[in-house]
Order: sequence, then structure tokens, then C-alpha cells
Amino acid sequence: MKLALPKNLLAEQIALLERVIPSRSSNPLLTYAGLAAGPETLVLFCSNGEVDLEIRLPARVQGEGAYLVPSQPFFQLVRSLPGEEAVLSLERELELSSGRFTTRLSLAPVEGYPELLFPEPEGPSEAFPLQAHIPAGDLLRLLTQVRYAASNEEYRAIFRGVQLEFSEGGLRAVASDGYRLALSELPKPQPFAKKAVVPARSADEVVRVLKALGEGEVALALGPGTLGLAVRGEGAEVRMAVRLMEGEFPDYEKVIPKDFPLRVRLEVDPFREALRRVSVLSDRQNHRVDLLFQEGRALLSAEGDYGKGQEEVAVAMEGTPMGLAYNARYLLEALAPLEGEAFLEMSGPTSPSLVRPSGEGGYRAVVVPLRV
Amino acid sequence: MKLALPKNLLAEQIALLERVIPSRSSNPLLTYAGLAAGPETLVLFCSNGEVDLEIRLPARVQGEGAYLVPSQPFFQLVRSLPGEEAVLSLERELELSSGRFTTRLSLAPVEGYPELLFPEPEGPSEAFPLQAHIPAGDLLRLLTQVRYAASNEEYRAIFRGVQLEFSEGGLRAVASDGYRLALSELPKPQPFAKKAVVPARSADEVVRVLKALGEGEVALALGPGTLGLAVRGEGAEVRMAVRLMEGEFPDYEKVIPKDFPLRVRLEVDPFREALRRVSVLSDRQNHRVDLLFQEGRALLSAEGDYGKGQEEVAVAMEGTPMGLAYNARYLLEALAPLEGEAFLEMSGPTSPSLVRPSGEGGYRAVVVPLRV
Repeated sequence: MKLALPKNLLAEQIALLERVIPSRSSNPLLTYAGLAAGPETLVLFCSNGEVDLEIRLPARVQGEGAYLVPSQPFFQLVRSLPGEEAVLSLERELELSSGRFTTRLSLAPVEGYPELLFPEPEGPSEAFPLQAHIPAGDLLRLLTQVRYAASNEEYRAIFRGVQLEFSEGGLRAVASDGYRLALSELPKPQPFAKKAVVPARSADEVVRVLKALGEGEVALALGPGTLGLAVRGEGAEVRMAVRLMEGEFPDYEKVIPKDFPLRVRLEVDPFREALRRVSVLSDRQNHRVDLLFQEGRALLSAEGDYGKGQEEVAVAMEGTPMGLAYNARYLLEALAPLEGEAFLEMSGPTSPSLVRPSGEGGYRAVVVPLRV
Repeated sequence: MKLALPKNLLAEQIALLERVIPSRSSNPLLTYAGLAAGPETLVLFCSNGEVDLEIRLPARVQGEGAYLVPSQPFFQLVRSLPGEEAVLSLERELELSSGRFTTRLSLAPVEGYPELLFPEPEGPSEAFPLQAHIPAGDLLRLLTQVRYAASNEEYRAIFRGVQLEFSEGGLRAVASDGYRLALSELPKPQPFAKKAVVPARSADEVVRVLKALGEGEVALALGPGTLGLAVRGEGAEVRMAVRLMEGEFPDYEKVIPKDFPLRVRLEVDPFREALRRVSVLSDRQNHRVDLLFQEGRALLSAEGDYGKGQEEVAVAMEGTPMGLAYNARYLLEALAPLEGEAFLEMSGPTSPSLVRPSGEGGYRAVVVPLRV
């Protein structure tokens, strides 16, 4: 088979494959990239066992077939091609040429490579019987807003994932490490009700693909043990299949506080900057920063081996003055998805607090104060 | 003592200290940064045992003294100060304030800190009896052009340094790892004749300081076992003292070839790009790329585990056609300091080749071909 396409288009899109393909694997075939011919299409594919990825690019095509090419030299060569166009001839070898440059790369047959199943962008398929459509930017927001709260610990492995909850009420993403929790909602009714836990690292790959493709609509599909995505970007059509974790989160709704003796409205940027400064001197173990809310001011202070720092920030208060302490990192991470004005709502000096935007926006974070 | 100065000036300059100060040291005092008051001047100083650095910044000053401050929290705090001005009060503690933010950092007394000796910008001193002046940009060029050729091996430790040669003929920098050699010259008569070998890592620190300070003239001074620098940048005066290596390079002039059966003139950019592409498929051990020069063309080719690549580049030839092979990395590094047109001069298929600019410029590199 023979394919020709603009070099820049190919060079841009291989960056997505490159992230997924492992440099080493117990199955050496996974270190290869797949190349196949479709109708007027070059199909690139790869898998790391957790994430499968397929990219379809418009190309001039003669013949048909599917081959595996050693990914590292192939990617390096594609990026350095001198001409405007890349011409690929695949038979026993890959002959890659562009301008005055010609190279021959060895190929491996696709036999033995895992079978990859992807959703169809148009609607449900046998492999992916449940399908919803959602703007790419919204899915990106849901995942990036909660990702930080996922656990890195072996303990309670389910928390190493991000839970997606499809329901009549909308689509929700949740992450927690048992000490804090973040959730983000899109209030758009979904055509089915289902929970699916995506490993946090695979969620990172989904985020990368969504960022690379820009605006558009994502077909989000569920099959047995698998989340599928199909999205059409500029010049490229991308499909993914992500292995899901088994099980689902324990009931977390009960840890989200409802009653707040104190509600503080604050400007996110100056509050965050002050918190960051004061936390420089906090204890290196628990990053403790003390907050005292009274008379329309938040007094932030911290003390550690090297000294102590303090700063005052003006806030708007509703309720009773309160003093409490947080792990500064947790509070900074909870504030990270926000800008403009936010609410910090406190259920008590040692019980969970809630962080949320002051206006619309489906983001909420639960942070537990440190015991003073 | 009490000092006040623009926050941005302080924040910019501490980046130079930060590179030098070790995060851990057998002498814990070296992890501190020094602060002292001079006339209308804040003096910052530090040392890692190999490189001593002093930065003088204009400041409003009351009182006098010298203290050590834990460098990591100090630098972090300075960068995050909210106001335009930084105010430092030093007595038992450092009180650092800016805008609404105040912090107290513990201090250590300077007793026990190594005594640092720096050259005077104006002329020779007791500690640095030899002194020359040279434009900062020229010194930067000399060091960066040859740095790549220095060795990383324990074997023949002297080659882990860059040799500076002061003489009537000018100032020369040389580096070699025994397999290749780079030298760069400034044809400006120097007021003394001396060779000094700067450890390559310390040369990197000198390069960083020169880059940060921009244009200007450097006072370059020699004392016993020490190279000193003093340079006045925008708003800051910087002095360095660098421990020299013992000994000097063996006579390297004899490995520089003089007679060339073949001289090739080439355009650096296209030649380099072609070499880079072809080398992708070269053997991973020796990065061998074959070059065949004939009929006004260079045919580059390489073959490795994954396949083979080749490309032709037009060149101008003087002499007899020749085929030879290089380690592509060595040849690419030898070409790196060049742009525009260059000469590749070959003394034979297995004897050293010379790389140099086609016009003026004191750079020359010796690369030994691989045995075919």
C-alpha cells in the first residue's frame, strides 16, 4: 500500500500516539505504531494495554493493508522530514520519503497485535451499546477540575480513578483520596444512568487528546469494562478506548457538608497568593496554615523550622467568627480550578469545609481542616 | 541593620545564587545565603566550595552587619512578595516585609562560613595579582563554543575542564575528551601569559552569570588556584571566584591536522538537518553515519537495527573524492556553534578532520572519523 499526506499534519498527530506507546513492554509489539490504509485515510493506531488510540487522517491512498512500524525511529523521522509532503510505501519494508530524503524502516506484521475496538462516532455499536454526546470542552473541564483529588496510594485502589456518573441529572466527575473530594457537574441530561471509574492516568491521556483536538463534540460510549471516545478534530478523527477500574466509589454524598455556621466570600487570586506566601514557612510535614476569620478579615499565619509568616486578606463574612487550620496544599489545590469570587463554607473548626465558585459552575471541593 | 530595595531587582538576582547554593552539603552553612550591608548596597553572597558568588545591589541601608539566612524559604518568599518594595530588617531574626505581608526567618551568624575572596573590578589585588579585561559577550562565546567537547569520564580528569590560555596572541578556550577537540580564540593581546583549567561545571555557572548580566566588560583575574571574575550588569555588580583544576592539558596542537587532501565547503543548516535525519537510523552504539563526497555532492547514509536512511546534499569540493564515517553526534556537536557556511577539511579517511567557519571566527573543532 502507498500513502501520501502533508508532513505537518502527520507530524502533529503522532505526538498523541507517542504519549501512549510504551518505550518498553512485556509485549514488545506494543512499542510499535500501527499504520493502516482506509478509504482516503491513513489510520494510525496504538495501545499500552490500558489506553487504545486510533487517529484517522485524510491521505491519498493506493492499495490496502495494515503494518506495525518501530515507533521511536518512525516518529523521529517524520518530524525531521525535509519536504512538504510525506510519502509512505509499505510492503516488506516502509519506504518513507520526502524531498531528497529516503529511508527504509523494517516492519512487523499486525498478527499478534491486540485487537482494538473503538466506538463509532455516529451512535451505539455492539461493543459500545451506551452512547452520549457532550461538548469536548465540557468533558475537558470536568476531568481537569477534579483530577488533583485522586489518590496515589495503593490503599483503597478505587480512589486512584476518576468516577464519571451519567444520569438524568447530568454528567458528574468525582475524585477523592479519602481526605478530600472534588466534584464537577455538567447539568445536561444523559441518555443512560451508569457509573464508570477511569484510572487517573488514563484520564490524563483523555485530557491530552481533548486539549489537542480543540472544540467539537465527543461521542462518549460505554462497553463492558471500557469507556470509548470518538471526536473529530481539525483534520483528524480520533478514537480512544480506556480500560475501566472495577467497582465504584463508596457513598461520598454523606461527607459533603450541608450546614455552615460561617460562609466566607473571597477574591480567589489575592487569597491564593497570600496563602501561598504564608505556607512557605509552614511545617514541611503537614503544611499547616492557620486561618482566623473575624471582622471582615482573614488572618493567615504559619510557623515552621525557619520562622513564621502572616498576612491579612479582606473577605466578606456571613456567620460566626472561626479559627481553623488547613493543609495549605489541599486548600490551594481545591482553589486551583477557580477564579474571580469563591465561597469557603465552614461547617466547624474540625469538620469538613466546602469550596465552590460564588456564581454558577458545577465545581465543589471538600477539604477537611487539620485538628488543632 | 535594615535594607530596602525594589522587590523585582532582588527577585531577579537571587536566581543566580540559587543555582550555586547546594540543597544539601556536608557543611550545612553552605545551604544558607549570605546577606550583608555595604554603603548604599545589599551584598548577597554564597559558595558551594567550587564557585563563590557575590552580588551587589543598590539599596537604602541603615546600620551594618552580615548574616546567613536559610536560602530556600528566603528565595521562595522573595519571589512571592506582594509589594513593589522589599524591606529587610536583620537582627536576631530577618523580618521581611512587603505590602500587607510580614514574615520572620531565623538567621545564623556568619562565623564558620568560609571566607570568600573576590577580584576588584578596577585592577589587580593581592589575592588576584593578574588581571585582564574582556567583553562579556566574547568570554561567553569562547566558553559556550567549546564546552560540549569536555569529558565526563573519570579517566584523565584534566579533560573534565575547559582550559583558558592567556597570551600575547589572545585568549583561547580549549576542551577535549581525548576523542575530539574544540577551541575558540579571541585575537586580542592579553596582559599576561598563563593557562588555567576551569572545571566544566563551574564554566557552566560562569556562562549562566554572563548570560544573565548581558553586555559589559568582565574583569578576568587569576590568583593562586583561582579564577576570578567581576562584571557590572544592569543594576547589579557580580563577582565570582572559581576553584581551578590542577595541571594543564597535554600538548594538543599536534592532533590538529594541517594538510587536507579534501576540503568541502557546505551550508551548515541543510547539512546538519540531513545529518540529523540520516542518523536516526544509525547504530545506537557508535551513531555511525557514512559520508561519500564526490561530484559536488555529499551522500549521507546510515544503517541500524530498524532500517537504513540516505540523503544527498550539494557541497563545494576542492581535492580528491573521499568516503569516510563519523559518529554523527560528534559531527553534529562540532557543527553546533556554526551558521552560514563552514569548511569540513579532511586529512584522510581515518585521520582527524577539521571543522571551521568559512569566514572569520576563532572556532575550530577536530573530529576523528570512525574506522571503517
